[in-house]
Amino acid sequence: MLAADRLSLTFSALADPTRRALLARLSTGAASVNELAAPFSMSLPAISKHLKVLERAQLIARSKEAQWRPCELKAAPLKDATDWMEQYRQFWEERFDRLDAYLKELQAKEVTEQPALPKKKRTHGRSKEQR
Amino acid sequence: MLAADRLSLTFSALADPTRRALLARLSTGAASVNELAAPFSMSLPAISKHLKVLERAQLIARSKEAQWRPCELKAAPLKDATDWMEQYRQFWEERFDRLDAYLKELQAKEVTEQPALPKKKRTHGRSKEQR
Repeated sequence: MLAADRLSLTFSALADPTRRALLARLSTGAASVNELAAPFSMSLPAISKHLKVLERAQLIARSKEAQWRPCELKAAPLKDATDWMEQYRQFWEERFDRLDAYLKELQAKEVTEQPALPKKKRTHGRSKEQR
Repeated sequence: MLAADRLSLTFSALADPTRRALLARLSTGAASVNELAAPFSMSLPAISKHLKVLERAQLIARSKEAQWRPCELKAAPLKDATDWMEQYRQFWEERFDRLDAYLKELQAKEVTEQPALPKKKRTHGRSKEQR
């Protein structure tokens, strides 16, 4: 399979909150389908369907040896997808740096403008006293 | 919208090689639909459809001011998706470290076993000479 299609398969498998929750559970260790299904208010066939999508994307594998056929998380597609995302790190870091600089600029303006505010108030106060 | 659903929308939008290529192009700067379509052997409506998916996922935005309505890449959903992936970095780094250790172990075994291999060959060679 082309690397591009494998990435599509990975991202497509990740595009579901239940499947992401199943991966989160499997990142703590192998588990049976029953164990995986326990925290969800979902039927076993529905969970099995999600697991099949993850298996097809090679994000998980099911042991063929043990009778309870535990599922386990696979590292390679997650690494490839992260590597792909990382290309854009520079892009969004630059954007957030620019936003940060802009917010600091706004803050600096506020600080330099701040002494003027109490002064105004004081002047106002004094003028009241003068009245 | 829930953060979980936003992530699903992001991953779903990334699950296509054309859309990922469009994002790669936009990471170098804003571009019009015609400019974006140029390198693809795809109709303009097909490209527009892909752009709409990216826009719905807020991965791109289209300027409303300029008449040519350039598309530009948006940083926030890419950052959120990368943050999600990063949770698993420790998991796959551990896996690859273990694989690395295993390969080094195999290599070390090969080095200590290597003197035995040429000896066998030589013995075989000699026995042929002896014939």
